[in-house]
Amino acid sequence: MIKVGIVGGTGYTGAELLRLLAQHPQVQVTKLTSRKEAGLRADQHFPHLRGYTGDLTFSVPDVDSLSDCQAVFFATPHGACMAMAPELVARGVKIVDLSADFRLQDTAEFKRWYGMDHSCPDLLAEAVYGLPEVNRVDISRARIVGNPGCYPTSVQLGFLPLLEAGLVDAEHLIADCKSGVSGAGREARIGSLFGEAADTMKAYGIPGHRHWPEITQGLRRMSDTPVSLVFSPHLTPMIRGIHSTLYARLKDPSVDLQALYESRYRGEPFVDVMPAGEHPETRSVRGSNRCRIAVHKAPDGKTAVVLVVIDNLVKGASGQAIQNLNLMLGLDESLGLDAPPLSP
Amino acid sequence: MIKVGIVGGTGYTGAELLRLLAQHPQVQVTKLTSRKEAGLRADQHFPHLRGYTGDLTFSVPDVDSLSDCQAVFFATPHGACMAMAPELVARGVKIVDLSADFRLQDTAEFKRWYGMDHSCPDLLAEAVYGLPEVNRVDISRARIVGNPGCYPTSVQLGFLPLLEAGLVDAEHLIADCKSGVSGAGREARIGSLFGEAADTMKAYGIPGHRHWPEITQGLRRMSDTPVSLVFSPHLTPMIRGIHSTLYARLKDPSVDLQALYESRYRGEPFVDVMPAGEHPETRSVRGSNRCRIAVHKAPDGKTAVVLVVIDNLVKGASGQAIQNLNLMLGLDESLGLDAPPLSP
Amino acid sequence: MIKVGIVGGTGYTGAELLRLLAQHPQVQVTKLTSRKEAGLRADQHFPHLRGYTGDLTFSVPDVDSLSDCQAVFFATPHGACMAMAPELVARGVKIVDLSADFRLQDTAEFKRWYGMDHSCPDLLAEAVYGLPEVNRVDISRARIVGNPGCYPTSVQLGFLPLLEAGLVDAEHLIADCKSGVSGAGREARIGSLFGEAADTMKAYGIPGHRHWPEITQGLRRMSDTPVSLVFSPHLTPMIRGIHSTLYARLKDPSVDLQALYESRYRGEPFVDVMPAGEHPETRSVRGSNRCRIAVHKAPDGKTAVVLVVIDNLVKGASGQAIQNLNLMLGLDESLGLDAPPLSP
Amino acid sequence: MIKVGIVGGTGYTGAELLRLLAQHPQVQVTKLTSRKEAGLRADQHFPHLRGYTGDLTFSVPDVDSLSDCQAVFFATPHGACMAMAPELVARGVKIVDLSADFRLQDTAEFKRWYGMDHSCPDLLAEAVYGLPEVNRVDISRARIVGNPGCYPTSVQLGFLPLLEAGLVDAEHLIADCKSGVSGAGREARIGSLFGEAADTMKAYGIPGHRHWPEITQGLRRMSDTPVSLVFSPHLTPMIRGIHSTLYARLKDPSVDLQALYESRYRGEPFVDVMPAGEHPETRSVRGSNRCRIAVHKAPDGKTAVVLVVIDNLVKGASGQAIQNLNLMLGLDESLGLDAPPLSP
Repeated sequence: MIKVGIVGGTGYTGAELLRLLAQHPQVQVTKLTSRKEAGLRADQHFPHLRGYTGDLTFSVPDVDSLSDCQAVFFATPHGACMAMAPELVARGVKIVDLSADFRLQDTAEFKRWYGMDHSCPDLLAEAVYGLPEVNRVDISRARIVGNPGCYPTSVQLGFLPLLEAGLVDAEHLIADCKSGVSGAGREARIGSLFGEAADTMKAYGIPGHRHWPEITQGLRRMSDTPVSLVFSPHLTPMIRGIHSTLYARLKDPSVDLQALYESRYRGEPFVDVMPAGEHPETRSVRGSNRCRIAVHKAPDGKTAVVLVVIDNLVKGASGQAIQNLNLMLGLDESLGLDAPPLSP
Repeated sequence: MIKVGIVGGTGYTGAELLRLLAQHPQVQVTKLTSRKEAGLRADQHFPHLRGYTGDLTFSVPDVDSLSDCQAVFFATPHGACMAMAPELVARGVKIVDLSADFRLQDTAEFKRWYGMDHSCPDLLAEAVYGLPEVNRVDISRARIVGNPGCYPTSVQLGFLPLLEAGLVDAEHLIADCKSGVSGAGREARIGSLFGEAADTMKAYGIPGHRHWPEITQGLRRMSDTPVSLVFSPHLTPMIRGIHSTLYARLKDPSVDLQALYESRYRGEPFVDVMPAGEHPETRSVRGSNRCRIAVHKAPDGKTAVVLVVIDNLVKGASGQAIQNLNLMLGLDESLGLDAPPLSP
Repeated sequence: MIKVGIVGGTGYTGAELLRLLAQHPQVQVTKLTSRKEAGLRADQHFPHLRGYTGDLTFSVPDVDSLSDCQAVFFATPHGACMAMAPELVARGVKIVDLSADFRLQDTAEFKRWYGMDHSCPDLLAEAVYGLPEVNRVDISRARIVGNPGCYPTSVQLGFLPLLEAGLVDAEHLIADCKSGVSGAGREARIGSLFGEAADTMKAYGIPGHRHWPEITQGLRRMSDTPVSLVFSPHLTPMIRGIHSTLYARLKDPSVDLQALYESRYRGEPFVDVMPAGEHPETRSVRGSNRCRIAVHKAPDGKTAVVLVVIDNLVKGASGQAIQNLNLMLGLDESLGLDAPPLSP
Repeated sequence: MIKVGIVGGTGYTGAELLRLLAQHPQVQVTKLTSRKEAGLRADQHFPHLRGYTGDLTFSVPDVDSLSDCQAVFFATPHGACMAMAPELVARGVKIVDLSADFRLQDTAEFKRWYGMDHSCPDLLAEAVYGLPEVNRVDISRARIVGNPGCYPTSVQLGFLPLLEAGLVDAEHLIADCKSGVSGAGREARIGSLFGEAADTMKAYGIPGHRHWPEITQGLRRMSDTPVSLVFSPHLTPMIRGIHSTLYARLKDPSVDLQALYESRYRGEPFVDVMPAGEHPETRSVRGSNRCRIAVHKAPDGKTAVVLVVIDNLVKGASGQAIQNLNLMLGLDESLGLDAPPLSP
């Protein structure tokens, strides 16, 4: 079995890495770190995993012991990965960073949105953005991958065919995104309390959100023309799930959008283009690495409306991280990721 | 006390009319009809109203007995009101129709979206669209009012200041709306089951929704230029509440949107313009007739993003119906509608 | 208007006091305190109250300024009220304490469960337990009232008729109680996050819970024979609401339980005995001070099963506190508390 | 691959059979029937299964074509299985019936609770009750298995060690059970609507519930002394999950309950006895065939309080059905059932 480690595994993305890797036939988690929970068994922290993590116990993060691993996931707040990554990479450990440290290539943008200088711009320069549907080959050769954010994954996969084909006015893109509350992480915040987030919804971050520069960076790579995006995230009373509703002005209203999306994503193991006229539900991907997309032409005939659903903790985080790991290790991209979604 | 009747009071809008009117100082519900539940006490059908509806009992709808009422609400499926309205109006009974029968002035549009001919076009021609913030004076003189739909109320109140002032490109309006499940009514439908609608969300009706022509009709009345709207309703796991996120291209990015909205809605008893930078939550109007609006300029500087929240069963239905009744009866518009929202 | 103050008004019980008192015809909140939020307007902290709290602003708690009030509510953690109460009472200010400081008459029990000595046993000795259905007269004469906990209110009202009449084996009482998450308060705790508490349920505190001694103290006062109670609280994915399912062995299976409950609670403004065979829902009292009770005989013929629902934030906290205030001030017990429940 | 069929696969238990069997290495679903949906692809009816059911399409149920299967699951309302079972069994097809037809051995009880005569008492007499923790050997030899109900599975597993060991007063057992709404099935019922079942809870069936005779039959088999059970089911705003809280009077308060449960369930693949003092959550078994149990002694020292959680659709229905199938086919009992629970 291939040994992997998880740094900062006490949150939701850490729990999902453990859940999904428990089903991976060739990878085993041998290191799990947390300064706060060091000494605690994984299944004491995550009772739902009783029976699946053996004696795996949280330990203090430490480069030497992590070096026994062939690859390491960082499920940490931003700043933690770039502090340890250079030494680990130097020792030949492959890294998949689920935090934001290796997503934005522009260090000035990174500082603007995350409030700190980037400590290893060289490594950042070689890091690959982990969206396999766009960067599969580069990922398979990468030493370090910046795993995309949840909103960015859904928005980029939704706009990709339209922008690559140059079919829309890229200066007036709108992404109206709805996320489940787990997207805010497993930190004790009043705004994330059941009493605050249940049976209600609201937009947030309209004046600016950290995922906006990440999405924009990605869309620019897909488009030959200037890109301008309005991004509106919303907090929704779901545990998991992102529903992104995307709007783009069509240059030519007669284009066959259904055929475009089907051909672009034919053969993609985790992107499912729904039949014409469908409306995907977030629960149809619950617990799964799948992304389901439906593309519509609005009744006005001139606007493409793209509906994208993912599980923010799987394709939006830990599942995609494992997909990237599989590619980096030369394994079948789908290993450990083929369980069906859970619905209802 | 002024006697009023409710035709078709077994659903959510009927329950809300009874709940709100129980707090109305000058109006009393003396007739409550339902073919199906005739003979059942109101508080047997709605146990939460035990202690508030006295001996009020469902009876079979009948024009003679309804004529004892000064006004009648129709909380029925479309088609029922237009069948009884002419006779009631002839007898001097004022009508507030919560169904769709008197919303669309174009009978061809009505037939297209509701699948039946309109049976009383003359009465339709005199009917007033019950959005007080637009039609207050006409409503106060009306014999029959078509009470707006839930989505149309939120979208029209959100776009109103922009369109009246001619500040946006009215041919590229987008309304991304999220509704609680009670918007689907109290009918036994698989799609509305807890097991189908909880912890998930989806768009629906992207190819076309009955509220689209109603919204468009309203927006056209506000605008000097042609209007084109993309309307995307979404089903959200909330009991009540609509959150409409509206997008419009600004002709002049330098306009002061905050001042515009505050001045347009100054003095409106039920429209609350939030301070600059806020994001209203649907729960902040739960159970209340209030509409809260926040207006933002997107980071792109050229797009207005308007956030509108209402309770779909109150300002989106029964509360606005009572607001209209108060106007029609020459009463204080706010009577019976001043209880604070319930949150959490 | 009678001036009242609220000490520690930033949580859910504080919000409910403000919401309910906004509808009280004779009482006005003139003081609202919070060390943490001093200087903030009440409606900035609680946006749903915009339009209902005027310029009311949080201030630092201070005995002098609170002395302008005729009565003060304490919506604070335990320990805070007993620190200020003696001086306020000495100045003639009536107190309703929503915390636990004045619930348990046995100071040793208080120390055992709350980990601190009681600082004013004399005042404790004169304090009245604020369950009007049991202590109405004493409450009306009290200078200080210990407002009951949420679970204790529902369990005591459910067992009251059985114990007063001596019809059950009081040594084998069971209370299986289910509470909404708001019962845990508005503090940032991981266990109360939406991601932790939604779509799941669990028991907690089976080995011991602070409400057990309070309930037992109350039940002992009702019973001529020794009382022993098994109390099992459960966390349920609801915002509000407590459903208590109570089990007691009948000494005489032939007793007419329905008649017993109806006669015991006849005339009580806030206790509704449901018709025989009913099963009350928590939503049937949402936002209301009502308690609804249904009493059944189990098919075994020898066990009474009592179903009790209240809103934990209203009859279980702030509503009952206002009911007690009304009694202490010689007002109609129901003032400000007559709005119907919100359902759905 | 072993061919199996599913009769009546349009509901939640059908969906779960398809989801779980998609992960089974040795079993393939070759027949899926539904009169109503005949001709529809399985993944059109269940979009979350797109990519997992190939071309599997609903067909009209028919004994001849079902005879190609080695085993058939019935996920039908009661009455359907006993109509087809005799002929299928005669043809050597093994049957797992998820309905109630083969659960109650007493045909008079069956008629009393299900309102119809049992059409094949002989086959009923040989049918085995499918609770592997009790009947493993008999199940492995059975031609037809009556798969237990959801409540009965949780209550029987919780009381089993206590009754087998004769440690409690079996005449005063109480089971207070809380179920998610999916337990009511995927039928269009007003009581199961999101608007009716969300953010509220209630007891139901206190005067009598169909699972009571099934549970009692099972408990009697475990006990040497007469058994009497009070059973209180509750509807809880969860999609999935049952939490059963069980109460039994201990004959000897000094017994070591933790050791008793650990030894009784040692080696059971799907029963997890939690460490002393724990409180299991329903989400800790979401989507899984596991049952987690914690056993407590109440502070009164004389009452055992047992906390049991299962997923009503898995261990409470489809997962246990597959566990039974594995036993009947001589396969490893856990095949297809080893995926970890989904949490959050």
